[in-house]
Amino acid sequence: MERVPVLKIGDILLVSIQIDMEDQVALQLQEDLAERIVASGCHGVIIDISALDIVDSFVGRTLATIASISRVLDAETVVVGMRPAVAITLVELGLSLPGIRTALNVELGMELLARERAEDDEDRDDDADEPAVTTP
Amino acid sequence: MERVPVLKIGDILLVSIQIDMEDQVALQLQEDLAERIVASGCHGVIIDISALDIVDSFVGRTLATIASISRVLDAETVVVGMRPAVAITLVELGLSLPGIRTALNVELGMELLARERAEDDEDRDDDADEPAVTTP
Repeated sequence: MERVPVLKIGDILLVSIQIDMEDQVALQLQEDLAERIVASGCHGVIIDISALDIVDSFVGRTLATIASISRVLDAETVVVGMRPAVAITLVELGLSLPGIRTALNVELGMELLARERAEDDEDRDDDADEPAVTTP
Repeated sequence: MERVPVLKIGDILLVSIQIDMEDQVALQLQEDLAERIVASGCHGVIIDISALDIVDSFVGRTLATIASISRVLDAETVVVGMRPAVAITLVELGLSLPGIRTALNVELGMELLARERAEDDEDRDDDADEPAVTTP
């Protein structure tokens, strides 16, 4: 069976989808990715779809499921490399990929994840400070 | 026609081969990669073959050609993610991928390229210093 490889680059897992997203491939990818997030402790997942000519509702649902699984495992997902024609077709089909972040390319996706992570850390620091402020 | 995407990550171009390397796909990849090296000025190319079950002589030759083209354009190529079974079959077939550097995974490939680049820069600095030393 064909399998989509998951590549680790620093704190990020990169997935480049090039083959047709059949049921088994999609399920296997979800499983592989979840395992790799847990094993590596990565906080970001980038899914490159620049090789895809078509994103139908099944692919859209698969991406949304991956994003949800990752979020539960404390990793953010960004979909990158969408072709202009794909974006147009998606909107025409009434699919707006709810809950999925996008960026133009891998580098911008990495920047987005790094920025979000930094903001999250700040928020956590603020939360940690609060008790110290309110306690006299 | 199917097309292998070329992803830019910092100073490196990343290619993850997942589809069958037919003649047209291989030629297109060589062309795309050469164009991207020139356009981006990247000095490293990483080719991930972790999705490949088989590396036959055609794929081996394609990888060698890509490495040669990249070298002419001042970029080093590293092939990463080779499966153990693929390595065994390659040697059994008498294919040793001459002229192709390998690393275990993308991260180690990036380290290898960064190290080589640093050494190259040092060599160049040494060369540049020489005239100053010999001239009185």
